[in-house]
Amino acid sequence: MANLHIIELLFILLISWYLGRLFRHKLDMPPMLGELLAGLIFGPSLLNLVQPNEYISFLAELGIFFLMFYAGTETDPKAFFKSMKPSILCGILGFIIPLILGYYGSKIFMPSLTEFQAIFIGLGLSITAIAVNARILMDLNMQQSRIGHVLIGAALVDDILSLGVFSALVDTIQSGNTAAEISLQSLYPVFSSMAHVALFFLLTYGIGKLVLPLLNRFYNEEGHGFTFSLLTAFIFAYIAEAMGLHLIIGAFIAGLFVREELNDKMVLSLLNDRLMVISYGFLGPVFFVSLAFHVDLIGLLHNLPFLTLILVVAVFGKFTGSYIGCILSGLKKSEGVVVSAGMNGRGAVELILVSVGVELGILTPEIVTVLVSMAFITTFMTPIAFKKLLTHYRGQKLL
Amino acid sequence: MANLHIIELLFILLISWYLGRLFRHKLDMPPMLGELLAGLIFGPSLLNLVQPNEYISFLAELGIFFLMFYAGTETDPKAFFKSMKPSILCGILGFIIPLILGYYGSKIFMPSLTEFQAIFIGLGLSITAIAVNARILMDLNMQQSRIGHVLIGAALVDDILSLGVFSALVDTIQSGNTAAEISLQSLYPVFSSMAHVALFFLLTYGIGKLVLPLLNRFYNEEGHGFTFSLLTAFIFAYIAEAMGLHLIIGAFIAGLFVREELNDKMVLSLLNDRLMVISYGFLGPVFFVSLAFHVDLIGLLHNLPFLTLILVVAVFGKFTGSYIGCILSGLKKSEGVVVSAGMNGRGAVELILVSVGVELGILTPEIVTVLVSMAFITTFMTPIAFKKLLTHYRGQKLL
Repeated sequence: MANLHIIELLFILLISWYLGRLFRHKLDMPPMLGELLAGLIFGPSLLNLVQPNEYISFLAELGIFFLMFYAGTETDPKAFFKSMKPSILCGILGFIIPLILGYYGSKIFMPSLTEFQAIFIGLGLSITAIAVNARILMDLNMQQSRIGHVLIGAALVDDILSLGVFSALVDTIQSGNTAAEISLQSLYPVFSSMAHVALFFLLTYGIGKLVLPLLNRFYNEEGHGFTFSLLTAFIFAYIAEAMGLHLIIGAFIAGLFVREELNDKMVLSLLNDRLMVISYGFLGPVFFVSLAFHVDLIGLLHNLPFLTLILVVAVFGKFTGSYIGCILSGLKKSEGVVVSAGMNGRGAVELILVSVGVELGILTPEIVTVLVSMAFITTFMTPIAFKKLLTHYRGQKLL
Repeated sequence: MANLHIIELLFILLISWYLGRLFRHKLDMPPMLGELLAGLIFGPSLLNLVQPNEYISFLAELGIFFLMFYAGTETDPKAFFKSMKPSILCGILGFIIPLILGYYGSKIFMPSLTEFQAIFIGLGLSITAIAVNARILMDLNMQQSRIGHVLIGAALVDDILSLGVFSALVDTIQSGNTAAEISLQSLYPVFSSMAHVALFFLLTYGIGKLVLPLLNRFYNEEGHGFTFSLLTAFIFAYIAEAMGLHLIIGAFIAGLFVREELNDKMVLSLLNDRLMVISYGFLGPVFFVSLAFHVDLIGLLHNLPFLTLILVVAVFGKFTGSYIGCILSGLKKSEGVVVSAGMNGRGAVELILVSVGVELGILTPEIVTVLVSMAFITTFMTPIAFKKLLTHYRGQKLL
């Protein structure tokens, strides 16, 4: 008889429940850290008591989908778009600076790298995992704050830029052009990718503003409204994937629009409770636990100098870029510091980038180990730094 | 990039949402029928627009797990156990009569059948799908009624009997004994299977009554209580599988005990809302839609005489057996008729039995087609008959 992979699921839920509680209640730290640690300790990296399998990965992906849909329905679009200026500046600079530093830094450290490898590494450093940011804000109950809006908005901008550049890069590699040949033809992937991103926004905005209001009653129907909301999120996620973006971008945008269609506060708070419990109490932990499954501790020790460089460049580049963006757009210094610290997690998008890079045959095992370790370490340090800085500035009445 | 099988999921949710609403609002019939029909029309049987894949099956199985856990948390154990006498009699007779009729009926119709094949067919007719019963009751909002308690209780008894006999049969076949040789040794699988069932109840009752109360506070903890309830259900489901029963039996029993640990009505109604939305608005439809994926319409037409016999024996045997059980235990005639009509669905357990039979090499393709078609047809007719009879007797003030 089929066994639903019960044992794996049970074990993952048990350790994430236990460590999540421990981190929240005893250590006063975000439960997400407990889940990451659970994956590191009990996964293949150390004890090897739970192994990744395709069903766990599938649930993890559903988990990140629900997490981002929930983040969307928890976000007030008006307040969110009000913070668009700092979001855009912080997102763009937080993307470009680590990209450039990563590209040159890795070329200087390892002159044998090809152009594509160096660009890939730079891109790996410039990613911000929007799901990590969303989770940090949920753990600290800050989804409705200005810092929360800037952090999610900047991560959104950053993710769209990195996924856009990433798919242009993949197209270039697949078309057989080298990075050095810049001709009109070799720029085609860049334009195509920009057109896709634009089309994504056009489509989702059009659907969200013109079509969804016509379907308003379906969202508010008892017994069927939840499924209809979910359907919307799946459609937006599909559009995002079709346009070369990740499905989580679609799920988040869907959340913003679905929220607008809910006629009263009760229906919204019911939807939020349901999404919260799926993404927080069931599938989300599967995602965060399995994030650690890819960390290779032995490979990490063998590449310590390279990893150290990459880590320093990642953290420094991301922080500096984001901070300059925040300050240029008029945020307070304290807000800039907290937001920039929050932008540091690389999370899941990094893993996708790495796995595509491996498929294309351009990443060596050492680059893979270093990028994956860096993603895990930055994801782990981000909620700690974010919370410490927040407490510090709040203590000084600067926030 | 991974695509989460979004398209399949989206399509399944869309058609089941649409047809579910249509059946409820326009046709005033249980939405479950819409989902079954959606699977039949859009699945491999007709249009072949959605195909079964392992991820869909995985979600379907999670769906039936949540459905049964939800059925448990919706059931008041005290009222449930008060109806235990009719449940047991109805369950036992509703199991034995179709088993005997199916065994002899198929042997007379098709003398070439082996002993094992005839027993398998009989067992196929004697199954009642508890998940179908639970869903019918939910669709009609009757979980708290006496008919509801008897229907679920009898299905539980029936499922335990059929799964117990089934695993004894599988052990016998695998040990190489023939059905005719009855020696002390050949009876070993029967005792072993009975011991396993007993152990299941001992373990779950012991845990439910002695261990869970000690963990009471974890169920009521905000933010982590849902995960803890889910953990309990997974543990009980695992025990059920380990004892040769299906995981849904464990999930249902877990629901009964978890309900007892929730300190106030608010926490219970929140849990029920969350489970309802997962099992009703997301994963449950995946289960009911994919139930129809296995129906082979062409094979069905080729085996029409055999199918007709099997259908008649299945419906007549199940109804008669259950009805005698109900009347013997003192239910009103009208209650007996409604409950017995509700016992007729074969649903998912049939598919497991068939797939194991195929693996063991004892079922011919025509037996498979006939059993699967019979399971689908009885599952489809059950909610219709149940509702019609209920309305009829209520109209006559007999219920």
